[in-house]
Amino acid sequence: MTRPAVDGEVRSTRGRPRDPGLEGRVFDAAIALYAEVGWAGFSFDALAKRSGVGKDALYRRWGASRAGLLRQTLEARWYGLEQIDTGSIREDLLALARMWLRLRTGPYGKVGLHMMIDTLRFPEVADVLAGYREDAVRQARSIVRRAIDRGEIPPSTNPGLVLDIVVGGVTNHVATTPQRLRPAMTAKMDEFAVSLVDVLLSGVKQAGQ
Amino acid sequence: MTRPAVDGEVRSTRGRPRDPGLEGRVFDAAIALYAEVGWAGFSFDALAKRSGVGKDALYRRWGASRAGLLRQTLEARWYGLEQIDTGSIREDLLALARMWLRLRTGPYGKVGLHMMIDTLRFPEVADVLAGYREDAVRQARSIVRRAIDRGEIPPSTNPGLVLDIVVGGVTNHVATTPQRLRPAMTAKMDEFAVSLVDVLLSGVKQAGQ
Repeated sequence: MTRPAVDGEVRSTRGRPRDPGLEGRVFDAAIALYAEVGWAGFSFDALAKRSGVGKDALYRRWGASRAGLLRQTLEARWYGLEQIDTGSIREDLLALARMWLRLRTGPYGKVGLHMMIDTLRFPEVADVLAGYREDAVRQARSIVRRAIDRGEIPPSTNPGLVLDIVVGGVTNHVATTPQRLRPAMTAKMDEFAVSLVDVLLSGVKQAGQ
Repeated sequence: MTRPAVDGEVRSTRGRPRDPGLEGRVFDAAIALYAEVGWAGFSFDALAKRSGVGKDALYRRWGASRAGLLRQTLEARWYGLEQIDTGSIREDLLALARMWLRLRTGPYGKVGLHMMIDTLRFPEVADVLAGYREDAVRQARSIVRRAIDRGEIPPSTNPGLVLDIVVGGVTNHVATTPQRLRPAMTAKMDEFAVSLVDVLLSGVKQAGQ
């Protein structure tokens, strides 16, 4: 997707050559920061300190939009579903379930929680978060639509329902596991993903008959 | 379940006759207050103001434990699953899905969100919330175990997986519906519950064959 150059980008081509690793370092620091403190603490000061990228460079590149930086960070370091396309609905849904299990149990597990809270609390970031989430839902639905096109699952299959079961099932599994049972849960994570996807696909295929 | 009388109860039998409607009024106010402000704002001051029950009466009854009051409130006004027992797994799971849809879209929808946040932020209430949640998980699992005992679903059925799909599916459905599509979602809520439970049960029965 082409997008119009923003102010900072134009200027940076005139001055010093642009640091190609800069975005990556900022995204790494930004996802860790957001997981810890959410939008309330997502400041350029904190980001500069954590990323080792100067505040001036942050302002040149993202000064116009701290929310834009958060969105780019989520796309680069939280999740993007557009790369899930194995040609098989079972493998696609397993990839989705595994990705979500990994994210929810990983070091940035609280990102999802902060997104929910910030959506309710901060109007200036709510649109950005809603837009990011709606994009993800669209991408996820296309996983199911492609499987319908390939004839793997009945045309009457409801893409939203399939995704609610995979993503919601994983979320609930992680959220309701008490702290003391976490190691056991982590050890059996992949078994859970396979059971979830297999029960779901049996049900979906049966429902179409 | 019998439970030992707490200090306040013993005293209240000696003094003025106990107001039988008091608990109900306090729980009504407490669930509304918790949904709005979470544990951080769950003070006896705010509760007294909202419930019309004097602070002295609150202290006599719950002074020893604001967390205990929260737990009793959740049991009385958020959810208790022990009453779901229709004798049919389909009806039990539909009742669970409908209850969860009603709670998540209702006026106290933010209770679940505050529970998650408060568990992470306030050690003094984390144990109470974890205990409440673990009780609920136990009750929900018994819905599935009874169906296995009745021979409705295969003995190999994983109760945790069934519940993750119903509860998580509903949660994700509500959480990912953009604000502008809420009225449409609410209108089709029951249709969603039926599809979810039917796909799940087809899959569970198939998986056991």
